[in-house]
Amino acid sequence: MLILYTDFGYKGPYVGQMKGVIQQVAPGVPVLDLMHDAPAWDPKASAYLLPALLAPFPPASVFLVVVDPGVGSDREAVAVQADGRWLVGPHNGVFEVIARRAVTVHWWRITWRPDRLSASFHGRDLFAPVAARLARGDGAGGFAEPMPAPAVSGWPEDLAQVVYLDGFGNAMTGFRARGLSSTATVSVGSHVLRRARTFSEVPGGEAFWYANAHGLVEIAVNQGSAEASLGLRPGDAVTIQHA
Amino acid sequence: MLILYTDFGYKGPYVGQMKGVIQQVAPGVPVLDLMHDAPAWDPKASAYLLPALLAPFPPASVFLVVVDPGVGSDREAVAVQADGRWLVGPHNGVFEVIARRAVTVHWWRITWRPDRLSASFHGRDLFAPVAARLARGDGAGGFAEPMPAPAVSGWPEDLAQVVYLDGFGNAMTGFRARGLSSTATVSVGSHVLRRARTFSEVPGGEAFWYANAHGLVEIAVNQGSAEASLGLRPGDAVTIQHA
Amino acid sequence: MLILYTDFGYKGPYVGQMKGVIQQVAPGVPVLDLMHDAPAWDPKASAYLLPALLAPFPPASVFLVVVDPGVGSDREAVAVQADGRWLVGPHNGVFEVIARRAVTVHWWRITWRPDRLSASFHGRDLFAPVAARLARGDGAGGFAEPMPAPAVSGWPEDLAQVVYLDGFGNAMTGFRARGLSSTATVSVGSHVLRRARTFSEVPGGEAFWYANAHGLVEIAVNQGSAEASLGLRPGDAVTIQHA
Repeated sequence: MLILYTDFGYKGPYVGQMKGVIQQVAPGVPVLDLMHDAPAWDPKASAYLLPALLAPFPPASVFLVVVDPGVGSDREAVAVQADGRWLVGPHNGVFEVIARRAVTVHWWRITWRPDRLSASFHGRDLFAPVAARLARGDGAGGFAEPMPAPAVSGWPEDLAQVVYLDGFGNAMTGFRARGLSSTATVSVGSHVLRRARTFSEVPGGEAFWYANAHGLVEIAVNQGSAEASLGLRPGDAVTIQHA
Repeated sequence: MLILYTDFGYKGPYVGQMKGVIQQVAPGVPVLDLMHDAPAWDPKASAYLLPALLAPFPPASVFLVVVDPGVGSDREAVAVQADGRWLVGPHNGVFEVIARRAVTVHWWRITWRPDRLSASFHGRDLFAPVAARLARGDGAGGFAEPMPAPAVSGWPEDLAQVVYLDGFGNAMTGFRARGLSSTATVSVGSHVLRRARTFSEVPGGEAFWYANAHGLVEIAVNQGSAEASLGLRPGDAVTIQHA
Repeated sequence: MLILYTDFGYKGPYVGQMKGVIQQVAPGVPVLDLMHDAPAWDPKASAYLLPALLAPFPPASVFLVVVDPGVGSDREAVAVQADGRWLVGPHNGVFEVIARRAVTVHWWRITWRPDRLSASFHGRDLFAPVAARLARGDGAGGFAEPMPAPAVSGWPEDLAQVVYLDGFGNAMTGFRARGLSSTATVSVGSHVLRRARTFSEVPGGEAFWYANAHGLVEIAVNQGSAEASLGLRPGDAVTIQHA
């Protein structure tokens, strides 16, 4: 299975052209869209969001990840094998947290280049064919060489920030909820929010936080928009208080 | 064939994660998106919209329907077999009109629960695996028990309201157009609209109503937006006048 | 492979219903979405955009193209075979430029009509079944008759206009970049833009033009929106200055 995760948005020919390439390289391999509205130009936000989203997919899946503000520069292209999963994309930190949390990790530098490599769309020209080759069962040796794991960055274990606002205005943070008690509070701006188990426990219009279906701390308003009600933006800092 | 109908919107990981689950339970079964911008948190609007949209799909299709404002509460989960089609989703009225109009109907209460059931995403954890099992040919007996058809609600035969505004600003109502004459009018707010056969019959910018491709009364403006021109909102009442 | 290109937007049941029809007529044929936000009601813009987008797809693909402001009128329905590709859609100029640039072209008038043809949704009722029959390998003779190529219109060789604004606010023109020098400028309104190779060559927030991944002149702002910064709209005229 080949799963797409990008910040391309749902408009334009970008996702469709990548799928055209994949279909030709790996006909018959199922291709799914995980999301295409990843935080734009922000590999760090995706570094914390992506690992929370992988669980429903088979362990042997290939993830094609294109959040690539440095396209056309000399940033490298990598394939990372983390606990059996393959992840293909730019070498800009987006795989940092997944690799850090995995038991077994192998890093590969993608050395293959297509005959025609556009300056602005490596998702289609470089990453899609490589991911498709992995998805059809090719080994990485045909297009990449082993590389040492990059030095650990100064990024924190969990990211106490809003990393994603969904279509309903729910705000996912990069902070895992496991281990937080039922009385822990989440503060954002001047708002101090209490924990609920889920939406239907809370009166309509009221803000709360909960452990979302991905295991992350999420700020929400029942039948409303936390984004609008609390004025939230991607990157807003949150404070977790173990009450 | 397994067809998805939700109010999740096109953003975020929600649809993609459901497809990941389906692909694992029912590999090779075609999965289609009917729509993901169903009227949000409004099972009644979908109860009237959904039956109008099913005709282009094979009679034996499985429809996974997630419009679920009560997720996490004690609302039940059901599978309904209506004239050969399967519909899987929350027991909140969303299947009421389809069942009422069907010749042969069987209701099943879903008793199976997954090992890990999130409080907020039953679409992924509960409904998707059940729908996938039906789509691969499993009988309902493995995860559900027969239940009596629910008592008929007070909902009308057709719903004289705007139930859906599409991306162009066309306003679908929950009222079937069959039997309405060419001189029937549709009133909404202070506007009284005449019938046309289709867009190209009407001058650009002019509002009219017509029997849409789903058999419903729809309010539209040729090369314009009825939503913007007439100030329409979901739930607006309309009056059908058999002139 | 069957590829969808429409101006339906991503909302509503339109694309899903077309896919339901296709799946029944041509089960197992891969179906991809190229884009569904083609310039609305504007066959001329798509006439110049579409040929730039086809390269990543196999030469024998079938393209289902629905940009159809005249739906329900007496405009004809056509299938065009251009250098091996099939294109199916309304006869309104949308295939004019593809046909003009192809070496081998055959035009067919679609004479088949379904038992139930809605007045507003020929994409589902007429074009989808025809495209699906081509995609499964049927000859065109079963539903169409050869027609002479239409007389050449007065449309220019390249279109010096903004034809498409993507989700990031990048503005594609209908003008091919091949042959333009590195010092050529693009003017739009009062702005005169210099060429760059790609986004990462330009400081954040600065407007430029470049040869995009589809070979077209595109106006962009690095990590920003050309649409917003320069106030661009579809149809805006641009001037190419070979400096």
